[in-house]
Amino acid sequence: MLAERYSAVRSVTTALTAPLSEEDCVVQSMPDASPAKWHLAHTTWFFETFVLARANPSYRPYHPQFAFLFNSYYEAVGERHPRAERGLLTRPRLSEVRRYREHVDGRMNDLLAHDSPRKELTDAVTLGLHHEQQHQELILTDIQHAFSKNPMRHAYRDPGKAPRRGGAMAPSLGWVTFPEGLTSVGHEAASSTFAFDNEQPRHRVFVEAFSLGNRLVTNSDYLEFMLDRGYARPELWLSDGWAACVANRWDAPFYWEDPRRTQGQRNVFTLRGVHPLDPAAPVCHVSYYEADAYARWAGARLPTESEWEIAAEKVPCAGNLAEEDRLEPVACGPLSPEDPPAQLFGDVWEWTQSPYTPYPGCVPCAGEFGEYNGKFMCNQMVLRGGSCATTRTHVRATYRNFFPPEARWQFSGIRLARST
Amino acid sequence: MLAERYSAVRSVTTALTAPLSEEDCVVQSMPDASPAKWHLAHTTWFFETFVLARANPSYRPYHPQFAFLFNSYYEAVGERHPRAERGLLTRPRLSEVRRYREHVDGRMNDLLAHDSPRKELTDAVTLGLHHEQQHQELILTDIQHAFSKNPMRHAYRDPGKAPRRGGAMAPSLGWVTFPEGLTSVGHEAASSTFAFDNEQPRHRVFVEAFSLGNRLVTNSDYLEFMLDRGYARPELWLSDGWAACVANRWDAPFYWEDPRRTQGQRNVFTLRGVHPLDPAAPVCHVSYYEADAYARWAGARLPTESEWEIAAEKVPCAGNLAEEDRLEPVACGPLSPEDPPAQLFGDVWEWTQSPYTPYPGCVPCAGEFGEYNGKFMCNQMVLRGGSCATTRTHVRATYRNFFPPEARWQFSGIRLARST
Amino acid sequence: MLAERYSAVRSVTTALTAPLSEEDCVVQSMPDASPAKWHLAHTTWFFETFVLARANPSYRPYHPQFAFLFNSYYEAVGERHPRAERGLLTRPRLSEVRRYREHVDGRMNDLLAHDSPRKELTDAVTLGLHHEQQHQELILTDIQHAFSKNPMRHAYRDPGKAPRRGGAMAPSLGWVTFPEGLTSVGHEAASSTFAFDNEQPRHRVFVEAFSLGNRLVTNSDYLEFMLDRGYARPELWLSDGWAACVANRWDAPFYWEDPRRTQGQRNVFTLRGVHPLDPAAPVCHVSYYEADAYARWAGARLPTESEWEIAAEKVPCAGNLAEEDRLEPVACGPLSPEDPPAQLFGDVWEWTQSPYTPYPGCVPCAGEFGEYNGKFMCNQMVLRGGSCATTRTHVRATYRNFFPPEARWQFSGIRLARST
Amino acid sequence: MLAERYSAVRSVTTALTAPLSEEDCVVQSMPDASPAKWHLAHTTWFFETFVLARANPSYRPYHPQFAFLFNSYYEAVGERHPRAERGLLTRPRLSEVRRYREHVDGRMNDLLAHDSPRKELTDAVTLGLHHEQQHQELILTDIQHAFSKNPMRHAYRDPGKAPRRGGAMAPSLGWVTFPEGLTSVGHEAASSTFAFDNEQPRHRVFVEAFSLGNRLVTNSDYLEFMLDRGYARPELWLSDGWAACVANRWDAPFYWEDPRRTQGQRNVFTLRGVHPLDPAAPVCHVSYYEADAYARWAGARLPTESEWEIAAEKVPCAGNLAEEDRLEPVACGPLSPEDPPAQLFGDVWEWTQSPYTPYPGCVPCAGEFGEYNGKFMCNQMVLRGGSCATTRTHVRATYRNFFPPEARWQFSGIRLARST
Repeated sequence: MLAERYSAVRSVTTALTAPLSEEDCVVQSMPDASPAKWHLAHTTWFFETFVLARANPSYRPYHPQFAFLFNSYYEAVGERHPRAERGLLTRPRLSEVRRYREHVDGRMNDLLAHDSPRKELTDAVTLGLHHEQQHQELILTDIQHAFSKNPMRHAYRDPGKAPRRGGAMAPSLGWVTFPEGLTSVGHEAASSTFAFDNEQPRHRVFVEAFSLGNRLVTNSDYLEFMLDRGYARPELWLSDGWAACVANRWDAPFYWEDPRRTQGQRNVFTLRGVHPLDPAAPVCHVSYYEADAYARWAGARLPTESEWEIAAEKVPCAGNLAEEDRLEPVACGPLSPEDPPAQLFGDVWEWTQSPYTPYPGCVPCAGEFGEYNGKFMCNQMVLRGGSCATTRTHVRATYRNFFPPEARWQFSGIRLARST
Repeated sequence: MLAERYSAVRSVTTALTAPLSEEDCVVQSMPDASPAKWHLAHTTWFFETFVLARANPSYRPYHPQFAFLFNSYYEAVGERHPRAERGLLTRPRLSEVRRYREHVDGRMNDLLAHDSPRKELTDAVTLGLHHEQQHQELILTDIQHAFSKNPMRHAYRDPGKAPRRGGAMAPSLGWVTFPEGLTSVGHEAASSTFAFDNEQPRHRVFVEAFSLGNRLVTNSDYLEFMLDRGYARPELWLSDGWAACVANRWDAPFYWEDPRRTQGQRNVFTLRGVHPLDPAAPVCHVSYYEADAYARWAGARLPTESEWEIAAEKVPCAGNLAEEDRLEPVACGPLSPEDPPAQLFGDVWEWTQSPYTPYPGCVPCAGEFGEYNGKFMCNQMVLRGGSCATTRTHVRATYRNFFPPEARWQFSGIRLARST
Repeated sequence: MLAERYSAVRSVTTALTAPLSEEDCVVQSMPDASPAKWHLAHTTWFFETFVLARANPSYRPYHPQFAFLFNSYYEAVGERHPRAERGLLTRPRLSEVRRYREHVDGRMNDLLAHDSPRKELTDAVTLGLHHEQQHQELILTDIQHAFSKNPMRHAYRDPGKAPRRGGAMAPSLGWVTFPEGLTSVGHEAASSTFAFDNEQPRHRVFVEAFSLGNRLVTNSDYLEFMLDRGYARPELWLSDGWAACVANRWDAPFYWEDPRRTQGQRNVFTLRGVHPLDPAAPVCHVSYYEADAYARWAGARLPTESEWEIAAEKVPCAGNLAEEDRLEPVACGPLSPEDPPAQLFGDVWEWTQSPYTPYPGCVPCAGEFGEYNGKFMCNQMVLRGGSCATTRTHVRATYRNFFPPEARWQFSGIRLARST
Repeated sequence: MLAERYSAVRSVTTALTAPLSEEDCVVQSMPDASPAKWHLAHTTWFFETFVLARANPSYRPYHPQFAFLFNSYYEAVGERHPRAERGLLTRPRLSEVRRYREHVDGRMNDLLAHDSPRKELTDAVTLGLHHEQQHQELILTDIQHAFSKNPMRHAYRDPGKAPRRGGAMAPSLGWVTFPEGLTSVGHEAASSTFAFDNEQPRHRVFVEAFSLGNRLVTNSDYLEFMLDRGYARPELWLSDGWAACVANRWDAPFYWEDPRRTQGQRNVFTLRGVHPLDPAAPVCHVSYYEADAYARWAGARLPTESEWEIAAEKVPCAGNLAEEDRLEPVACGPLSPEDPPAQLFGDVWEWTQSPYTPYPGCVPCAGEFGEYNGKFMCNQMVLRGGSCATTRTHVRATYRNFFPPEARWQFSGIRLARST
């Protein structure tokens, strides 16, 4: 069973890199991003280090330098190659990294098929698979960023197959209301399903009455903000946000192409190439600062993560997400009146107004895994709900994603909230 | 009555700058700090702009360029001199700025004494006085920073009068426990006392049972952390904190002098000059990152701001704070067994683990004052309790101070908490 | 005799700082500039260190920390305060630095009046006086820079006394030709007059025939270059120059005010305040890159330093220079047909196309003075002829000034040359 | 004849990239370096733009975006991809760039074989071939830099074939003297051989008597400088050089590995992998600043470019250079007593003390080629003599190479000179 999950998840990673050339796999277009080859190797190093080497003390690593090259941030495991120089690693070649994956997969299959690994190891495998799913989404967001820096604007995936397109209007925005109350959020420890340590423990919170927008903010909505000079009015922005807006000369979401180069036509660059902006699709690739400014302009605010979770527990975990066996969406589709109201999963990660902090009574994992989540609990904002680049099996109502407030290269969008 | 408060508060500012030379008043030692002369002028500009000009539409500003020079960050009020270049303003001279203060004080006294100003104006005056008190503390922290950059290590105030000194040991650390419960925090709107918009509204929170350290962490405590290689162990630090520690080569709190230059003697630079470290005094001038790392090392954590406030509501607002008519403390005194247990006010601002975010249902002030607090609600951590540089009349249990997690030049220290 | 020179030169420095307030004297507006107080102290430290302490081994410095604070760049003399932090030195106060000057002047007068100092010391005194004259010009250029950063645009000197003004046209540009030949340049060692080590030895050079413009390039000339889009045409610029132009958004000489803020009126900021651009005055405050681009646009080139010196040896060292006992010029006057043709001294330093390198057979001064000039012989361009801020007694035909090619805050202008 | 040269030179480029993988060819390890794929494409774009498009006005470029991607710095030819982002161009793929080369080679062969191109075109072809040879050396220096950033330390070429190795001692250093005199340097315009515009015109210079070291400075010589604390003594360095030394923590030539990681063994990283330092080989990969400091320490100086050229005109253009049909050297061999005295070509480029400036009467090429050399004549130092990575057919006595004084990734070394 775990062996099957292992194969399924690892295959998705391979499938995601299939459209990439050797050259595509080696570049790093900014320090925040990593090369696809590095993602392939790092996720493999994770299993080698935290499963194979623990299961068998005499396990000899595939290559003595890979631990140095492919450790991401585990201080407890030793020194690392500088993050900003991952794109210089032309060696080992992609073919060698693929052999590394096969080698580790073979050993992992042996372990999972024939042995009865102890719980500590199966837990590490499960964590490793969720870890790999996180990197699957990063492979997509990082390569989109790399391709965007190239005037050739190469399409990662066949442009013809973009999700249901059309001039259809999105439904008008409505509000779903929730009463005040003392309730619980977070992952129930007794549950049999997986959750990261940062989703635990389940704990009580008092939440005032609130309303949530019944759909995401669309490109059409966002264009109104832009037409109303949203990017030129400091009173709409957080102070740090305005500084970022000015310093980076933001005047539209990331990946929106300059319409002055295309006779006023608004195009966006996506993993399916450059195509005209779909007004009915959710706005995507906005920073927290832009989401916050938009909400203020709209007379609303962003939800807290508790509010979002209270709402999400009531709806199915479904939407414009990737399926392991199909992997279709890597773009936001247009919203349509047929969508279930307040569908909270898929399309774009939704910025919340909650900084990423530990839950009350939170106990980080022991050992190296204690570094997995806890040490990032500063200067980051929580996002919820998964995106069109997230695998459906990876997300859930309690899932806490997090990025710095200026990050724009993720599939991040906006849902409004209001105090009532 | 308000006229008397006006005079009292304004006099404190004048008294605080009395020990400074013209040259001392003009320098800016880093972009985060401001020259004393600028503080003198900016607080005056506040009353001129938000009180005098509103009270009398034909009011003619003292100088046509002062609004440009001395506006801090009010986008709604117009363009401003660049923050990082405040230290280049040799003109207007200090004497001219003092005349500007006298001019505005004269008009303010007229307004407050003879007219019956409408509530909007008296509210603005009250806000302006609390604003001035904030700048009073900044005058002290900013000049300490400036003097610290000068090898002459000039003492702001007579070294002989440091608060109760001695080799006395601090009492050993104990814990005060608090039960779980649904309770309220924040400022009650119906109250007759002043509070900033960011302290409102009073609202319900559910808090798990917790304990709070019954005294601040001392220099002696902190030296143990240092001896245990606290500045060399990444596993104790937040990821951003470790990066800051490495990049800035932190190896002790700010203003601790390098003992290798003094035959191993640990000295600290204070507003009263350089003197030996007092082991019984609270550790001061640590960043949030250091406070957080210390707490992790000590097997504890920092309190949330709700926890802190629940505890503080039960104790008097007293401690090692400045008095308007004496102004003595500008250094932490040694803790002593005679101190009341869990005295939460004075000596040092206490870092909480709470990012600075809006309270549920928070409504920012209307107009320009909406910029006072709200736009800084990102990338900052809340501190509570006031310091030896805070005037006693300025602080209260609900007061929320905030600084970025790397800030060290404020009088910031550590109180521990635990989940129980 | 030397005692009289000492008093005369030192008095000029005092006179130059007379119009400055204490606050003016402490600021440093960029790392390349220094505070006036620092100039006052550093020139004094020079005599204390290189004359008084050498003359009398038991000489006790005026203050034990001044050597650390006021050493500029003499590695041989020990550690130094960081250059970029000179503006933070509010202590010692200006009054204390003036006492320091008086103290050292007293000792120097004793030495020069009563003793018969050995040649090594009188040589050091002479060097120190020329050194002080260099700093006199820097006091002016540095304070102009500081005042320019302040929107109050304070005038250093009475605006009413600007040099002969008027709408007079400059004479039209003519050329003076010089034949090819093997000739000598540099300072003759046997001469009784002073020269720096970098002007020596006098040596032979072969120079092709050339012509030199018979007057400086004027503001009017330069405006034609600007109207012809000189700042927008990369083909006119050196590669590094174009990069500097783009990065710094240069579109006019330094200190030219933006005419969009004054209804199209072209104003310049000078030490005599803001006034309308005089078309007949030499263009001033241009970088080497701008001078070079202008020359290319004009179908000419800049002279080499040998060419300039060959021409200058034939004309008197006179022009719009400062006189020790009057100190009038600190601005360029308009050129007029009455000027002697090809007056090469005064008004502005003239950029040459010669990088600053050692003369053949150059031997740097022994000891600490070896650091005076030689170690800067890289990445700098030679300027010749003195400016309106240079004292007439300080400049001569062989004098080599040098600044990096992007420097603009000096009184630097343009003379054209041509190969014939 | 020109067709044969074209094929010969183009083949060398192909041969040089043969050992590189697709991934190796795409990376850019610093802004000063370029990816091998970019070099392959840029040199091809040169012929397409400056020969094919001029020969046939209806020539249609191979790809409409390649002019944007592969223009290096020709402002006259239009906008360009940012230099620092050349390493992000995963598309076009290497295979596509190879097809581009083949396409252009086909058209060039047609032009050169069948037509009788006019002189302007054959001149452009000749320039293009020398241009390509410059990029051949850069392909080597840039890939060495890229490999050096990878802990795998991949060897570009078979380590077994390093040039004549051994413990042999270099001959002791002697001096060759040259008399003073008026002489000529530079390329004779009437000559039938090729030279760049920056080598012209041949012109008279007066040179004082001088001596030149009869061999290059060796690793053994340089180690003495290091043992004598050469990297810790500011008095040996130019001011900018010392700043670079401190800022970059230089303590040895570039590519020398830290001996603390190898039990004190001094290793160097070369294109043939890591191997022990050969004491008899010329020191390589030093900046101008290091060369200058070494010379000062050695009681000598660097030669001027005139001095070097006077000496070089008397010796054959031979040495440890690459041959078009063998390409062997890419490392410095040990010097040996059998070497001809004062062999000035090969092994390493020799830093001169001459800044890169135009020769008297220099006329840059007309049109776009005017940008080839002239606009770099600032902030660069001249190097002479070619290196082990230079093709023998590319270098000559009048050849002026140039790099900024801090550059270390070229094959740059030291020859001493003295005034006599």
